[in-house]
Amino acid sequence: MNCRTEKDYLGECLIPEDAYYGVTTQRALELFPSTGEILDDKFIWAYFMIKKSAAILNSQLGYLDNQIAQAIQKACDEWEKLKSYIVVDPLSGGAGTSVNLNINEVIANRATELLGGKKGEYIVNPYNHVNLHQSTNDTFVTAGKIAVIVRLRELVEAVIKLQEKIQEKEKEFYSIRTIARTQLMDGVPILMGQQFGAWADALARDRWRLNKVEERIRSVNIGGTAIGTGIGAPKEYVLKIVDVLRQVTNVKIAKSENLIDATQNLDVFVEIHGLIKALGVNLFKISNDIRLLGSGPNAAIGELELPKVQIGSSIMPGKVNPVIPEYVMQLVLAVFGHDEAISHATAQGNLQLNQFAPLIVHYTLKSMQFLSKACNSLSDYIAQIKVKEEKCKEHLKKSTANLTPLINYFGYERVAEKIVETNWDIEKAIELLAKEEGISSQELVKKLNIDKMTGLGYY
Amino acid sequence: MNCRTEKDYLGECLIPEDAYYGVTTQRALELFPSTGEILDDKFIWAYFMIKKSAAILNSQLGYLDNQIAQAIQKACDEWEKLKSYIVVDPLSGGAGTSVNLNINEVIANRATELLGGKKGEYIVNPYNHVNLHQSTNDTFVTAGKIAVIVRLRELVEAVIKLQEKIQEKEKEFYSIRTIARTQLMDGVPILMGQQFGAWADALARDRWRLNKVEERIRSVNIGGTAIGTGIGAPKEYVLKIVDVLRQVTNVKIAKSENLIDATQNLDVFVEIHGLIKALGVNLFKISNDIRLLGSGPNAAIGELELPKVQIGSSIMPGKVNPVIPEYVMQLVLAVFGHDEAISHATAQGNLQLNQFAPLIVHYTLKSMQFLSKACNSLSDYIAQIKVKEEKCKEHLKKSTANLTPLINYFGYERVAEKIVETNWDIEKAIELLAKEEGISSQELVKKLNIDKMTGLGYY
Amino acid sequence: MNCRTEKDYLGECLIPEDAYYGVTTQRALELFPSTGEILDDKFIWAYFMIKKSAAILNSQLGYLDNQIAQAIQKACDEWEKLKSYIVVDPLSGGAGTSVNLNINEVIANRATELLGGKKGEYIVNPYNHVNLHQSTNDTFVTAGKIAVIVRLRELVEAVIKLQEKIQEKEKEFYSIRTIARTQLMDGVPILMGQQFGAWADALARDRWRLNKVEERIRSVNIGGTAIGTGIGAPKEYVLKIVDVLRQVTNVKIAKSENLIDATQNLDVFVEIHGLIKALGVNLFKISNDIRLLGSGPNAAIGELELPKVQIGSSIMPGKVNPVIPEYVMQLVLAVFGHDEAISHATAQGNLQLNQFAPLIVHYTLKSMQFLSKACNSLSDYIAQIKVKEEKCKEHLKKSTANLTPLINYFGYERVAEKIVETNWDIEKAIELLAKEEGISSQELVKKLNIDKMTGLGYY
Amino acid sequence: MNCRTEKDYLGECLIPEDAYYGVTTQRALELFPSTGEILDDKFIWAYFMIKKSAAILNSQLGYLDNQIAQAIQKACDEWEKLKSYIVVDPLSGGAGTSVNLNINEVIANRATELLGGKKGEYIVNPYNHVNLHQSTNDTFVTAGKIAVIVRLRELVEAVIKLQEKIQEKEKEFYSIRTIARTQLMDGVPILMGQQFGAWADALARDRWRLNKVEERIRSVNIGGTAIGTGIGAPKEYVLKIVDVLRQVTNVKIAKSENLIDATQNLDVFVEIHGLIKALGVNLFKISNDIRLLGSGPNAAIGELELPKVQIGSSIMPGKVNPVIPEYVMQLVLAVFGHDEAISHATAQGNLQLNQFAPLIVHYTLKSMQFLSKACNSLSDYIAQIKVKEEKCKEHLKKSTANLTPLINYFGYERVAEKIVETNWDIEKAIELLAKEEGISSQELVKKLNIDKMTGLGYY
Repeated sequence: MNCRTEKDYLGECLIPEDAYYGVTTQRALELFPSTGEILDDKFIWAYFMIKKSAAILNSQLGYLDNQIAQAIQKACDEWEKLKSYIVVDPLSGGAGTSVNLNINEVIANRATELLGGKKGEYIVNPYNHVNLHQSTNDTFVTAGKIAVIVRLRELVEAVIKLQEKIQEKEKEFYSIRTIARTQLMDGVPILMGQQFGAWADALARDRWRLNKVEERIRSVNIGGTAIGTGIGAPKEYVLKIVDVLRQVTNVKIAKSENLIDATQNLDVFVEIHGLIKALGVNLFKISNDIRLLGSGPNAAIGELELPKVQIGSSIMPGKVNPVIPEYVMQLVLAVFGHDEAISHATAQGNLQLNQFAPLIVHYTLKSMQFLSKACNSLSDYIAQIKVKEEKCKEHLKKSTANLTPLINYFGYERVAEKIVETNWDIEKAIELLAKEEGISSQELVKKLNIDKMTGLGYY
Repeated sequence: MNCRTEKDYLGECLIPEDAYYGVTTQRALELFPSTGEILDDKFIWAYFMIKKSAAILNSQLGYLDNQIAQAIQKACDEWEKLKSYIVVDPLSGGAGTSVNLNINEVIANRATELLGGKKGEYIVNPYNHVNLHQSTNDTFVTAGKIAVIVRLRELVEAVIKLQEKIQEKEKEFYSIRTIARTQLMDGVPILMGQQFGAWADALARDRWRLNKVEERIRSVNIGGTAIGTGIGAPKEYVLKIVDVLRQVTNVKIAKSENLIDATQNLDVFVEIHGLIKALGVNLFKISNDIRLLGSGPNAAIGELELPKVQIGSSIMPGKVNPVIPEYVMQLVLAVFGHDEAISHATAQGNLQLNQFAPLIVHYTLKSMQFLSKACNSLSDYIAQIKVKEEKCKEHLKKSTANLTPLINYFGYERVAEKIVETNWDIEKAIELLAKEEGISSQELVKKLNIDKMTGLGYY
Repeated sequence: MNCRTEKDYLGECLIPEDAYYGVTTQRALELFPSTGEILDDKFIWAYFMIKKSAAILNSQLGYLDNQIAQAIQKACDEWEKLKSYIVVDPLSGGAGTSVNLNINEVIANRATELLGGKKGEYIVNPYNHVNLHQSTNDTFVTAGKIAVIVRLRELVEAVIKLQEKIQEKEKEFYSIRTIARTQLMDGVPILMGQQFGAWADALARDRWRLNKVEERIRSVNIGGTAIGTGIGAPKEYVLKIVDVLRQVTNVKIAKSENLIDATQNLDVFVEIHGLIKALGVNLFKISNDIRLLGSGPNAAIGELELPKVQIGSSIMPGKVNPVIPEYVMQLVLAVFGHDEAISHATAQGNLQLNQFAPLIVHYTLKSMQFLSKACNSLSDYIAQIKVKEEKCKEHLKKSTANLTPLINYFGYERVAEKIVETNWDIEKAIELLAKEEGISSQELVKKLNIDKMTGLGYY
Repeated sequence: MNCRTEKDYLGECLIPEDAYYGVTTQRALELFPSTGEILDDKFIWAYFMIKKSAAILNSQLGYLDNQIAQAIQKACDEWEKLKSYIVVDPLSGGAGTSVNLNINEVIANRATELLGGKKGEYIVNPYNHVNLHQSTNDTFVTAGKIAVIVRLRELVEAVIKLQEKIQEKEKEFYSIRTIARTQLMDGVPILMGQQFGAWADALARDRWRLNKVEERIRSVNIGGTAIGTGIGAPKEYVLKIVDVLRQVTNVKIAKSENLIDATQNLDVFVEIHGLIKALGVNLFKISNDIRLLGSGPNAAIGELELPKVQIGSSIMPGKVNPVIPEYVMQLVLAVFGHDEAISHATAQGNLQLNQFAPLIVHYTLKSMQFLSKACNSLSDYIAQIKVKEEKCKEHLKKSTANLTPLINYFGYERVAEKIVETNWDIEKAIELLAKEEGISSQELVKKLNIDKMTGLGYY
């Protein structure tokens, strides 16, 4: 491999000749062996847009040569092509410094080329030009928040799609009566549509929550430079950079009222991830319920007919498993793990900076992607679910819980006694009670209107 | 011990003669050995108020004899005296059934006494009177939500108190200049007041968050009875019970629009606990920062003088430790553990009911109590913190980070070179740079305005 | 309340006249509002035994007056009566200092009484006599480890009992054939006894693990005093204290080879709690499986007949729920939460001491108690489980998985085709395959020996 | 893209012409959108070796045509080249079925080619030949355990290397006296070498633990096929397959004594991951301690001189941060998250199979890789650490804890009084005490041998 040599104040490094990155990136590659994790695309995009915005503003304010500023902007617009050179590991140490330096170097080298120079010549300087009036401390977290907002929109769309698919099924299955199970034990009657409606309404809360959260994360610390005091940056820059960035990204960010706080305290990521996790909780519960209602199909509950989307066994021909609910549940378990890591990482931030910002930002974005995928897969799956009405009817008929409406008439204890007496045989128990009233079972069922128990309130 | 015998459809039990509880409670005591956990007072209160409200409404609607209803109400008002008989373990199995039965039995026995009967006679019946038109499924979660709202108010007050104490210190320490540390390494200058202000502003977000959350948890499933379909309850009761309960408790609850959803999906507890955890994250960070800034006092940072509230060692006389921050941090770690338990328990709820509701409600309330205590202890502690100005000054002077303002004039690389050249001796590095400009160090410092670097933006 | 006044170098305090504790305990009560958590009995016992051992050895070595030493020993032997005065919160800050001081004060006051003095007179001094040659740093962790070993034995016994009860059922149900479910979907045949055997063998691993762990935690830092260097303690004391303590407690502890390491690094608690958690995982899985196999009973799997130990509903007469499995699962979820807290607390120990030792020790012991209770409750419950053979037979008959043995004869794809063709109707699929062979279904079943598929390997 | 068409009993699919995988893999790619996670190399290798072993044994036993068996073996030996076609997501649903099918298809197509056929022709059949006498249920977990053992060896080596580097520093810094800090507050004297020794000895426990664990995970369920009953497999195969696999992999696996248990209960992964986590705890603590001891360097503790491995700031020239400890700590936080996911996933396995096996195996292997990387990076880093002796001396001199040895002579309270009197000025306190004795400070220091306090026991 042909290489060029670059140096900084810590020493020299060999760099692959065609690489847009420079010495600090090369060093980071050696320092932080790849974990296999990958920086989120939207995060890289947001970071390039920050660099672009700074170039625009610095040139407007006269701090940066116009030609250089334009070369930087142009390089930033090529972010999608350049992103293969953003190679620093998402979990690298240094509170994101190596990532920022990587981006600075790539832009500097590309902009240098655009001005007719060669990689490594740095006509455009990574520190004095690309990073002008910025610090990792303000750019990293700001890029993270912008990326979160973009991912949030994707996620909300995915939740909406899932909710709609479930609501379609709610309508489709509305009139199908079946039995509820509390603590997995036979309970009182329910309509299958009501169950789908309950899932859909849980997701409605998630939509609301995720929509609301955008306003919580809009507040960014760009302009605060090192620790939020704006050291090294001119006042006009500090005051205007958010506006420029807002225009460039079209994301409705706002300057934090306390840049020092916004630099060191990342609790808003814990808040957001907590809300994402609440969505995960609902996805897990829905998926698990589908597994239960579709279980068997012959030797368990089997009220739902699950889509046959993949071969279920390499040895049992014809076996079909709930692979999508399982996929979703595993993604949610991973998200729970992210939540633990994010919460503790945020709590352990020290003094004026959170040294674990890379982990916090990375796992937040990862969770969002995981759940978007989970929602989309689950939507397609649920759209193909059918109900086996015969099974539902059969289950409903057998349930001891059908006796619940009797308690207002006979009292709880008397009904309970008969069930014990008949060893949990519901038909015999009704018979005995009817007999004591001097009527037939059918008459009793009719009199107490047992068949119409699924609505709100009785009779 | 003198005992009486009671029975239900599962059999007989011996019960201590003076106990207000009955057979199912006795059985629960044997089934679920005490974990040492204790039901939250506010939860017990809320549960009694539900029973009272049901009695009021059922008597108004003509479903319950007036005399019995009044005896029930009276017994409910004695909840504080009776609560020592609410003995079922908070982590008992049965989705709260044994707790509900315990409360029903205690009220029934006390009301029976009020009507001239004896314990065990059940003139007032626990099922047909006290529990009329209710189920554990709707009462348990509703009681939990009411208790959360009450605890929320306490918590918000505790947060406000803490924020105010920190803000007082923000003012007190405003003009004291010191050095920031990012990743624990010497950074750029900061005012000690700014640091306290950053903590206070993090807590401002917590106040906002916790205030907002009340509206999220107001929505209750009372009236839904077994699974939210309202089975066994008359329509007028279902529609009115929330209003009565709101009046009785003076807590602004509202009827959930989907009682089935509200019965089975407890994601709102995950949401709330996630927000509580975010407060925990801030408390942990603040406490840890105080530990760091107060460390030493002689052989570490030691910029804060920590209150001498407790003897720090049984063997090192004169040692004083940051015992309150440590107490707070341990409570927060416990809250993190609760969060894991709650999240997974909620995700694993099956079908029409969450079988782990007892754990979810219990740990949510416990976390709230933990953090209220943490805030209060930390408030008192912070109020006694002092700053050692000499130490701050000394630290500020030594920091290499003082060179940051020089980069706009000399460029990043040139300043860095000098630091390396002088082996990180800041005074010498400035001297070298000044020399190259042909001026003295003092002139350079003055020219570049290095001493005024703490404000927003430079110059 | 009558009070006496005590003072230490931080100032004066009023103390209830009859309290055996002194000034630092009183202060701790005010500093650390009760969390409701309670110090483990075995931990208190172990701490008293350390004090007793130190008194014995110090008097033997001539560092402590005989009379005083004997008074201390006598007071220590009264630990069970005195423990109500050990009132410091288990999660108090100070790395256990307040707990140690509390114990010192109670022993000092009681010993003072035994020598004819009055509480507060301190003829026996808490520091110079009771705490002689000790520090919180070495006594606290050592007491924790001793208590863990004692609790470990209880836990192992509980696991053994549970395993035995399951093995009894393994035999009882051995010959009952039923169907397995993988991913909740009908699988291949299994004997019910085999399933119980699988649970029992998982517990066998837990027994092994817990037995092995005792040797891991035996290594204690007593004698290391402040940070493990043994500062302030004479060499003979440091070398002999473990032997005395071993005799006094009858717990096979050993002196750590590196007292400094053993003082600051508490990873062995993480190791132990991880193993305890593995037991929790098995208990959770077994409990959940029981819930599934007992679900219904009519409208779900219902192969196991669950013990009717508690009324299952306040509104559905006759409902019986798996309350013990639910109780067990909640305790396990709590243990998972403890694991998170313990792991992070241990990881965050700073330098020469872990400031979170109180949390680490407390939650480890709490988890052990939780799981002992869980095992015992589950044992009694499982002993009452019955199997519904009819249901098992019925399930077995319906399962498509019965076709698995056919693949060796017909090939996977051909069998699969028939299942699709008959829309998952197993009897018809066999019929079609038999037809192609020119024989009857019965002949095919016999030929391929389908009925004997549960053993190891085929035919 | 040119495609070929394949079909199975669920329908047809288009597959890229040059892909070695087939229809079920193609379907899995569409069903389970990539999470970005990647299957562990060693896991893929182990899976191919299982296929190879089965082919060898099946041909020996006469169940598989020799030519086909040899083609399969040859294809398996090409695993490294073929692994780019193993594309199913590690978190796919189906308990690993899609992964197994993917591997079967790739081997079948490659073996088909080796026999002169074309991809898609399946001269070698994925089910009837490659998967003969296997199920996903036994192969997936067995492959996972073999991969864990291989990764375990890497990890142990990495731990040994780290321990050795620390021990070198232990020797290098042995005689350097400094001050200990308990709860971050000045404590008693310690040698810097003792601190490094304490870290090294913590790692010694990890070595021991990880070494021991291999014997715990050796026990595999290969041969158990679907649920561990060995259904569909001939007895000789079931009994011999482990031996063949042991020879082929050179990994010392053994047949589980209860294949049904080993198939459904994955608690051993929780056990192992708990032990891995304990290593993580030590790495976190060591890294954090290094951060603390190296903090500043001027305005905090700064006793260690940290290696200057990367530029620490894009705005503060000359800043050097503890990037490697931060990298390590983030990896450990991720491992903690994996632990939560693995524990809950394992606990939630249902009946005869754990549906979350993919997550459990994937995250276990990922954690092992993370910690191997962490150990290696930390080794290189620690090797470059230096100590600043001047700073240590200065800190030692200032510490109030130097008074500890005085308590045996003066009593705890009298020493404490003097410290309070002099407002924590150690030199003055000694002076006062000396004065009361009628000697000079120097005489007192000499008399009490204060300077030699770091050894074990005093005098």
